[in-house]
Amino acid sequence: MPVIEAGLLKNLVQKMFVAVGTPIEEAEIVADHLIKANLYGHDSHGVVRAHYYIGLVGEKIIPGAKMEVVNETTSTALVNGNWGFGQVTGRKAMEMAIKKAKVTGIGMVALYNVFHTGRVGEYPEMALKENMIGIAFGGGSSPQVVAPLGLSRVLGTNPIAISIPANEERPYRLDMATSIVAAGKMTYYLSEGLPVPEGWILDSEGNPTTNPADLRPRLKDMVEGYAKDKPLKKRGSLLPFGDYKGFNIGLFIEIVGSFLAERGKERKRGGFVFIAIDISNFRSVEEFKQDVDELIRTIKASERKPGCDEILVAGDPEHYTYLKRIKKGIPIGEEHWDEVLLLAKSLGVDEKLLEELRE
Amino acid sequence: MPVIEAGLLKNLVQKMFVAVGTPIEEAEIVADHLIKANLYGHDSHGVVRAHYYIGLVGEKIIPGAKMEVVNETTSTALVNGNWGFGQVTGRKAMEMAIKKAKVTGIGMVALYNVFHTGRVGEYPEMALKENMIGIAFGGGSSPQVVAPLGLSRVLGTNPIAISIPANEERPYRLDMATSIVAAGKMTYYLSEGLPVPEGWILDSEGNPTTNPADLRPRLKDMVEGYAKDKPLKKRGSLLPFGDYKGFNIGLFIEIVGSFLAERGKERKRGGFVFIAIDISNFRSVEEFKQDVDELIRTIKASERKPGCDEILVAGDPEHYTYLKRIKKGIPIGEEHWDEVLLLAKSLGVDEKLLEELRE
Repeated sequence: MPVIEAGLLKNLVQKMFVAVGTPIEEAEIVADHLIKANLYGHDSHGVVRAHYYIGLVGEKIIPGAKMEVVNETTSTALVNGNWGFGQVTGRKAMEMAIKKAKVTGIGMVALYNVFHTGRVGEYPEMALKENMIGIAFGGGSSPQVVAPLGLSRVLGTNPIAISIPANEERPYRLDMATSIVAAGKMTYYLSEGLPVPEGWILDSEGNPTTNPADLRPRLKDMVEGYAKDKPLKKRGSLLPFGDYKGFNIGLFIEIVGSFLAERGKERKRGGFVFIAIDISNFRSVEEFKQDVDELIRTIKASERKPGCDEILVAGDPEHYTYLKRIKKGIPIGEEHWDEVLLLAKSLGVDEKLLEELRE
Repeated sequence: MPVIEAGLLKNLVQKMFVAVGTPIEEAEIVADHLIKANLYGHDSHGVVRAHYYIGLVGEKIIPGAKMEVVNETTSTALVNGNWGFGQVTGRKAMEMAIKKAKVTGIGMVALYNVFHTGRVGEYPEMALKENMIGIAFGGGSSPQVVAPLGLSRVLGTNPIAISIPANEERPYRLDMATSIVAAGKMTYYLSEGLPVPEGWILDSEGNPTTNPADLRPRLKDMVEGYAKDKPLKKRGSLLPFGDYKGFNIGLFIEIVGSFLAERGKERKRGGFVFIAIDISNFRSVEEFKQDVDELIRTIKASERKPGCDEILVAGDPEHYTYLKRIKKGIPIGEEHWDEVLLLAKSLGVDEKLLEELRE
């Protein structure tokens, strides 16, 4: 499997977006976002998406689109993304939430007319830098998740990410789908020809299955399907995380993440909510962070099952993947990599960079 | 099993609290809260607690205590409950959050020096009446929940409740512990002498068990243990809901629900956070509620497994229990009921009411 150095990969991806008419600073944000997703191990939201986004440019993604503030109070805002890159409008929306939190203690911004915001964990991270608690979640994408005792898709995979600062310990960094696993994980099992673990998916008849193709076809068909808004009826479904409790958390995200946004008559695809909470209005940030340290240490020091080296908390798996990949590079599936290079070439990305990447 | 009419039961409980020096309007709030918990089927937070609270009056519960605002911004506040009844200070804190949301679009209040706020679902309900989204969660109670791959208790059962208004459909009403089940459910299995389902608890050695006594001793000993702050070392633990995802949501609640509150040197027991979001600052409340209706109808109308009459969403189980109990009365375990009556008698509650209740 090709393993690519992060800086080179970012350079390539940025050039590809510029080639399809993206302003250079937007291309930088999107490329940085995608590469970070890979670095943290969220490959389903990484470079594999470049292809997909580029195919939608001019249709569901409008480079350079201006975000509009539709409704605003001192602590809240509703913003229209006007189908700009989700990575760009998402970042602006989170910036607004942080700015508001600085004034009133908490800021909440709902974003609509946005296609895909990428790795959700990116946004709470911005709050972390300001010593704030950051929260982001999104709902209303194509239904894939089944209700407990149900047989068909009723909810999106509705991801949520939360970051909380710590002092000496690593911050708390949750970044999860409310489906039992991110739908993107199927791509791995499909490409490796492996069955998925039991308890993840149901087939189109509602029977448990371990065949990832029951949930979704191969990547190529999927991209095509998304682009054409093909009906999803004949596909299987993903189970929610945490049975009925997790399903209802997914339902909360579906409602609040997407229904707070204005829709008009035609139902739009999804929405996103960004929240920033300024700790300093409640208590000393230093003491708060020391308490977080203490709790994380207590958990890490607690007794473990034999064979378990470390009790992991939110953000740990991503941290370890990051350490490895920032040093050794980002592994990309052979097939995807060939497609990326082919696309880059057809977009006229300079041959010298492609040569370097092929090595 | 005795089945008691809700009005009579409330009357009794209110009188018991008045008898131990609770101002009548506070006793009314606490009694109403406890009876509602029973009506909605959350018996572990119902009348069974009256006993327990009364035993703590003057120690961890101070009737008539004044809530103090410690820090305040336009959208947020930190309040000191001064060990008043959690049902009373919780209500006041949620009222503050709602008032702030009316001004800035969102209000968030953190409460500390509070012992037990009762059924968490009570608070978001107050936001619902104002056409707002209400959220309440609390962390930092005695650890009972184990980490995935861990063997000992590291988190509280950290409950969260969320209410979202609908139009013609029932509102979305989440009220859940972030443990796989509420710890209070053990009481039922203990009193019935039944094993708990597999996958709920671990014994003190970290082995899966179905014996509820591995998690906690009988109610009497439990009350005594709580009151004396007995060490919990030799007890088993509850599994989190939703494996590592659910555990990390519980961890989020532990941190934000309890660490936003000032603690001083001596670590206090727990804290609570109340949030209200004013929908009207984002979009038309009517249209929002119609969208909620539509989604709930879509879920209810989706295909179901054979034998499943209705796909339930958050709030449905409580709704059905309410309909039954408001009509037929509240069932209370024989043993508990005897204890309640005995305590009521010793507190000097008038004999006429007790006679009526004994019938």
